[in-house]
Amino acid sequence: MANTRLLPSADNAYQYPLLIKQLLLSGPRYNPDQKIVYADRSEYTYRDLVDRIHRLAHALTDAGVKPGDTVAVLDWDTPRYLECFFAIPMIGAILHTVNVRLAPEQIVYTMNHAEDDLVIVHDDFAPLIEKVSGDLETVTGYIQVTDSEQAVSTGLKNVKGEYEQLLSQSDNCFDFPDFDENSIATTFYTTGTTGNPKGVFFSHRQLVLHTMTAAATMGCSDEMPLLRSSSVYMPVTPMFHVHAWGVPYAATMMGIKQVYPGRYEPELLVDLLKTHKVTFSHCVPTIMQMMLATESIKTADLSNWHVLIGGSALTEGLCKAGAKLGIRMYTGYGMSETAPLLAATYLKPEDLELPLEQQTDKRIKTGIAVPMVDLRIIDGNGESLPHDGKAQGEVVARSPWLTQGYLKNPEKSEELWDGGWLHTGDVASIEPDNTLVIRDRIKDVIKTGGEWLSSLDLENLISQHPAVAAAAVVGVPDEKWGERPHAVVVLQQGQTATLEDIQTHLQQFVDRGDINKWAIPSAVDFTEDIPKTSVGKVNKKLIRDQIQQ
Amino acid sequence: MANTRLLPSADNAYQYPLLIKQLLLSGPRYNPDQKIVYADRSEYTYRDLVDRIHRLAHALTDAGVKPGDTVAVLDWDTPRYLECFFAIPMIGAILHTVNVRLAPEQIVYTMNHAEDDLVIVHDDFAPLIEKVSGDLETVTGYIQVTDSEQAVSTGLKNVKGEYEQLLSQSDNCFDFPDFDENSIATTFYTTGTTGNPKGVFFSHRQLVLHTMTAAATMGCSDEMPLLRSSSVYMPVTPMFHVHAWGVPYAATMMGIKQVYPGRYEPELLVDLLKTHKVTFSHCVPTIMQMMLATESIKTADLSNWHVLIGGSALTEGLCKAGAKLGIRMYTGYGMSETAPLLAATYLKPEDLELPLEQQTDKRIKTGIAVPMVDLRIIDGNGESLPHDGKAQGEVVARSPWLTQGYLKNPEKSEELWDGGWLHTGDVASIEPDNTLVIRDRIKDVIKTGGEWLSSLDLENLISQHPAVAAAAVVGVPDEKWGERPHAVVVLQQGQTATLEDIQTHLQQFVDRGDINKWAIPSAVDFTEDIPKTSVGKVNKKLIRDQIQQ
Repeated sequence: MANTRLLPSADNAYQYPLLIKQLLLSGPRYNPDQKIVYADRSEYTYRDLVDRIHRLAHALTDAGVKPGDTVAVLDWDTPRYLECFFAIPMIGAILHTVNVRLAPEQIVYTMNHAEDDLVIVHDDFAPLIEKVSGDLETVTGYIQVTDSEQAVSTGLKNVKGEYEQLLSQSDNCFDFPDFDENSIATTFYTTGTTGNPKGVFFSHRQLVLHTMTAAATMGCSDEMPLLRSSSVYMPVTPMFHVHAWGVPYAATMMGIKQVYPGRYEPELLVDLLKTHKVTFSHCVPTIMQMMLATESIKTADLSNWHVLIGGSALTEGLCKAGAKLGIRMYTGYGMSETAPLLAATYLKPEDLELPLEQQTDKRIKTGIAVPMVDLRIIDGNGESLPHDGKAQGEVVARSPWLTQGYLKNPEKSEELWDGGWLHTGDVASIEPDNTLVIRDRIKDVIKTGGEWLSSLDLENLISQHPAVAAAAVVGVPDEKWGERPHAVVVLQQGQTATLEDIQTHLQQFVDRGDINKWAIPSAVDFTEDIPKTSVGKVNKKLIRDQIQQ
Repeated sequence: MANTRLLPSADNAYQYPLLIKQLLLSGPRYNPDQKIVYADRSEYTYRDLVDRIHRLAHALTDAGVKPGDTVAVLDWDTPRYLECFFAIPMIGAILHTVNVRLAPEQIVYTMNHAEDDLVIVHDDFAPLIEKVSGDLETVTGYIQVTDSEQAVSTGLKNVKGEYEQLLSQSDNCFDFPDFDENSIATTFYTTGTTGNPKGVFFSHRQLVLHTMTAAATMGCSDEMPLLRSSSVYMPVTPMFHVHAWGVPYAATMMGIKQVYPGRYEPELLVDLLKTHKVTFSHCVPTIMQMMLATESIKTADLSNWHVLIGGSALTEGLCKAGAKLGIRMYTGYGMSETAPLLAATYLKPEDLELPLEQQTDKRIKTGIAVPMVDLRIIDGNGESLPHDGKAQGEVVARSPWLTQGYLKNPEKSEELWDGGWLHTGDVASIEPDNTLVIRDRIKDVIKTGGEWLSSLDLENLISQHPAVAAAAVVGVPDEKWGERPHAVVVLQQGQTATLEDIQTHLQQFVDRGDINKWAIPSAVDFTEDIPKTSVGKVNKKLIRDQIQQ
């Protein structure tokens, strides 16, 4: 460690620790009368938000929550959830945003693993929690949440009261303490195809730094007015998932109008877009497709709607379909482990000179790493690879807001941080202009002939054969090559094709220099169906298992 | 301290300390070919900037600079200075930005007090340094800087070489180390009307946080495209003064075009505005007035030039004169001790609906405190005062980027941080919409009849009397009232007025409720001239001394 000269007082250096309560200073100061809307139900001002956060802090404390305790929330995307984003960490407790889409037994697993003390639960999820409450090992009480006039009666024991009632009974002035900025503020669980969900966790310092960078980045392109005084924000990725990508914190810090949709019903979402002239959302491709398929979107003016797409790749088709309606889509890249922001589309003035529909190329790439993120692609030996658009390697990152590991799972934490860099498990190339292009998941990449071959690239090429409806490619062990690609192909109805047809088809791409000759699969299985996981992704693990049986 | 749950690994929490080197990650990644311009002399790209920072680090190390050492810079505002902003702190050393406008003996004082080891000095300042070099107690060497083909010969001893030559001889790959984020990165001296200059200092962590907030804030208004991909930045406050308000760091982080003017010659500045279509500058009122007075500004299209005004108040007259040319001015508020950003003009969409010339009211107020800044006005007992636009109190602040104190001056440091808040020495009111309005310096405010009376407000009212050319008001001790206002007035040529005339004139403002009756001075001295300090400010200390003799 270099022998630098330190600030004279080490205590003093932390006299202003980075805490989530500071994110609440500026928004209400900029725009005290700015609105926060709950779908077509109700709305209130930033002034009210502050008032309610103070009341919630009292209600939580009165319910016995102490610093270091964990409070679980099961709710739709509402202003109430935003209040929990602030009040729970601000009293020194940990917010566990429960993934309500998990199977009941997985919900129980995560709530026991996170050692939840108090549970804030919406009526709609109460029956589920009632059923499993006997299995919740650490929970000592519940706060009910309702969208009806009155909370429904419940079989839960130790109910501390109904959320709105508790708030109305509480004092609106809480003295939020200072504490160590490395205190854990939030936790939630990632879901893989195998094994139990793994818990990630973020400190106050990490969330403050993520928020500041998000705010700096989300306004940096000329046409990207994501967080400016006239912006209107509506999240369309759930608040339980990576704090709705951290944007509610940034939106609140900047004092912009926020619209919370509650449930994700496509017609309702489109109505809210129209009514509130929403300018900024974030979304996964599936939900965007559902919104584009509604009848009512045809009569909406969406020429000022900017949407950050993440979760899975933004395809050219979706981007163009949106552009036809005037929707400006951008790609965001990150994951639960990274809070999540790592990279996003960066448009230069010259990119914007093209008509919107011709900007697709730039918008569907993964983008450029944002400020404060050190991002590399590395080969199997941990060596950095060049930015030539060709070399493919695993994406690794360092930045001030990455999870330290998985909760109570030192083994997986060590894997995640192998060599002092967070391993994303994604394989990418980086173009000479520093644009990141994600090619595959590392566990699906095919290591053949000393090179990495993207299974996704190969699937795309095979799919271009006129007889092919769908294709999946996996690597199978091979003594000479390390691995060899093995394809599973579903043919178009009434079409036929042979192994040789597929190989001949691929040979043209070898001739053009797009792929190497060892990328041509030596085996193709023609099947009726490609196996999928419960969330609709191709189940490559199962395909590999079936081939190797 | 609340008993929160901390991140499991304390070391790990700092595995990514906030360091200035991280500010250099994103700009060159966004725009490697973006230009950095040195007046009408030369230009290079962000790629070159990175290359040169690596070379400079080697040159400094070769010249014997170690982590913890201090490197002084005396240069004009140039890309070289920007290189020093990065390379010196990035090797763990401290950058001392020497105020070249100080008297030679004060320059010597600051260089000895900061314990400068190496000095980077431009030809233009070399004669000065040569004269005093015998008095520099800690300096062990010099690097010469020149804008000519060759460095001028010098009488300085231990010259390590000429800047460009050293860079060209050095390797362009330096392995910048990680170290504690609380390491001091920069230092410089404030100048008061009395006593020696006082040194403030900032850590890597503080400058990173200041930069992130500046970047988030400077794009948040719809019409304030200060740091976006198409922005062009030219500083017009010196780089030795609070790192040119910290903007070069933010501009570099965002990868925007930068134009460094060298010397501040009004015609040159206007030429650069025109040539490079500058969109963003910061400036003190005096320099802006000089630029507005040039002939060439009349033919410039300045409708996209946005200027943050600080240092002293933006007057209505100057703001309107600028607006006539299409210039958009904003007020920034801060000081050397605060890195400097505390507050800035915040425009809402409805403010922008008015024609530019009618937006003056909003633009000349001090603005709203920026994110992460906790700012209050307090009375003499340290109690917070209401935001009613009337109550006046001292502005105190907390934020993650305030100097911990004055270098080697514990007494003044304690005064600065009395009660755990940084005392700005400014008196202000805060309007119900949270807009800060600076009224006076606390040492000039008149404490009379239990209230605080702004000497500036009173001077403005007296100046509205038709016979008055200029007025200054100070408080003089009074047994009954605590203090009473005492005015010094210069009359317009050929005009006369008496104490009673002035008092009658002020009575109308008492009748209207603008001021209290005890604000009317009981004494007025009519003089030829109002004493000024060396930097052109009214010398109230001298006026008080003269009255009390």
